[in-house]
Amino acid sequence: MKKIALDTPAILVDLDVVEANIAKFQNYCDSHGLKVRPHIKTHKLPRLAHYQIKQGAIGITCQKISEAETMISQGGIEDVLITYNILGEAKTKRLRALSEKVRLSVVADNATVIEGLSKAFADAPAPLPVLVECNTGADRCGVATPEIAAELAQRIDTLPGLKFLGLMTYPPTGKLPEVAKWLAEARDLITVKGLSVEVISSGGSPDMWQAHEMPLATEYRIGTYAYNDRSLVNRGVCTWDDCALTVLATVISVPSKHHAVIDAGSKVLTSDLLGLTGHGHVLSRDDLMIDQLSEEHGRITSQQDINLKVGDQLRIVPNHACVVANMLDHVELVRSETHLESTSVIARGQVW
Amino acid sequence: MKKIALDTPAILVDLDVVEANIAKFQNYCDSHGLKVRPHIKTHKLPRLAHYQIKQGAIGITCQKISEAETMISQGGIEDVLITYNILGEAKTKRLRALSEKVRLSVVADNATVIEGLSKAFADAPAPLPVLVECNTGADRCGVATPEIAAELAQRIDTLPGLKFLGLMTYPPTGKLPEVAKWLAEARDLITVKGLSVEVISSGGSPDMWQAHEMPLATEYRIGTYAYNDRSLVNRGVCTWDDCALTVLATVISVPSKHHAVIDAGSKVLTSDLLGLTGHGHVLSRDDLMIDQLSEEHGRITSQQDINLKVGDQLRIVPNHACVVANMLDHVELVRSETHLESTSVIARGQVW
Repeated sequence: MKKIALDTPAILVDLDVVEANIAKFQNYCDSHGLKVRPHIKTHKLPRLAHYQIKQGAIGITCQKISEAETMISQGGIEDVLITYNILGEAKTKRLRALSEKVRLSVVADNATVIEGLSKAFADAPAPLPVLVECNTGADRCGVATPEIAAELAQRIDTLPGLKFLGLMTYPPTGKLPEVAKWLAEARDLITVKGLSVEVISSGGSPDMWQAHEMPLATEYRIGTYAYNDRSLVNRGVCTWDDCALTVLATVISVPSKHHAVIDAGSKVLTSDLLGLTGHGHVLSRDDLMIDQLSEEHGRITSQQDINLKVGDQLRIVPNHACVVANMLDHVELVRSETHLESTSVIARGQVW
Repeated sequence: MKKIALDTPAILVDLDVVEANIAKFQNYCDSHGLKVRPHIKTHKLPRLAHYQIKQGAIGITCQKISEAETMISQGGIEDVLITYNILGEAKTKRLRALSEKVRLSVVADNATVIEGLSKAFADAPAPLPVLVECNTGADRCGVATPEIAAELAQRIDTLPGLKFLGLMTYPPTGKLPEVAKWLAEARDLITVKGLSVEVISSGGSPDMWQAHEMPLATEYRIGTYAYNDRSLVNRGVCTWDDCALTVLATVISVPSKHHAVIDAGSKVLTSDLLGLTGHGHVLSRDDLMIDQLSEEHGRITSQQDINLKVGDQLRIVPNHACVVANMLDHVELVRSETHLESTSVIARGQVW
């Protein structure tokens, strides 16, 4: 690999690869009649959100209101789904303000949340569309059964300022038939109550190429696919060449024949393992293992002669791209080995 | 616990606890004639660096030049040790500029690094003091043997623009006698060469109360002690009451009798485990386990009835305080349950 004239550690985003990743999944969804609603938590960059919409995405997904506020403040985004239980007056007021700027929808899985939303939207010019979040096996948020989903849908329908829009889930990996059964049951129970289930929102990068196997979904939320990462290569979802985000690091010490140290630690690569061993994949060096991170050091080992010298540059595909994109204020946009510009990750650290 | 009127998730720093932590360790070191050089990587706040110096610290430690630049730009810091192999012309030039503002020293463990430093400092008004970093068992950076330490010390002494200052190590936990033997050997080999070993710098919070057992150390670098965290409570170094940094989170979902979800995930608590199970300790609720994090969700489980409702606030001691302080642009300064002000973590994300 050619040496890149950038101070390290740096987070590189290869736009050639990003654009190909976005186009490939958009084409796949287009061919199956599935709408794409990318999750901006991966890149946190308005320019990439705009690119996704230009390629055919119907809008974006955000996890927190502050992410949505940041993306919307840059203009051009007209449709945002916030896939989070929004709680507390400080937050519902901001949501209300946001709803006057763009087409907004949210999710909820409990009565406290929808009552708070209703209070904030009771006198709104238009009702806030709410999807019921369903726990189809991932055991994070979500109502526990299709029956509870139907009850909550009805409760949303009766509350002032709210409109029941549909169902949302983050399916557990490799369980699409079970998820489809769960959602179909909930949909049928809700339909019986006289309500319309306009949207069924599924998502997740690990099962992205199986998305068509659950035809009752109308929308697909997807984040990591734009960058890809070691976890997705490991699952067979993509190849190293499809990984758009890499960490550029420099070898700062080679203390022994089988061990070197780079200037990127957990403050860049993060400690996310996602079930993997080691902290990233060094491109073009399958023999190397990043076996230990401290905040500013990454330790690299090899069973063979490590064959690295102080000053060498390495390019690393991290375990989890989304969390790496959250660590620094800037990422470096490149095309192959050509540096284009440094850009501010403006939705970084937006957890409110 | 009283509810704190802050939007969540938030990182709280209790100044009462910080001040007590700083005073306690300073007193301990004073009583043993050991100089304290706090590592600002934990708090990243100039005001706390100033407080540490006012209490008797001789200066600060930084890991990267950008941290040092940020701390110095706020004024009042006069002595900085950067415990990192500084490599590349871009960085050595910045180091040179910094050396004209404050008393600066660095470490090195290889010839490439000291040659680069020498090039940048050859025409400096005063030589740059360099400590040799020693691998005394932590197997990160550092020369492998006392003999190599002595050779590198001599090489530093002969290079223009540099001055050999002493030895630096980050000792492996619980191995102080072995570390002391290593350093004494290196010191003696260097003294035989006619060089003076002015500084022997040790450090680390896990063994902080054993620091006096290695009397040949002249300085002690310490970071986490200011905040403490779950890893240090687990090691018996401090108690929950000594933990100054906590994460304030809100329960956003209680999907089942034994499971709840909070609005703080890995974007606040981080995935650092430091050998522990779970992602933090919920204060006043020993029965709860934070068993899973995604970026914006923390899942909490209990063997008993979880006894939480949507809207409840929890205060969490994270596994590792330093990395949590790196996640958000602001921390909230408190004294007990009283919020004082929000302050910018200005040395956050400074990895260059």
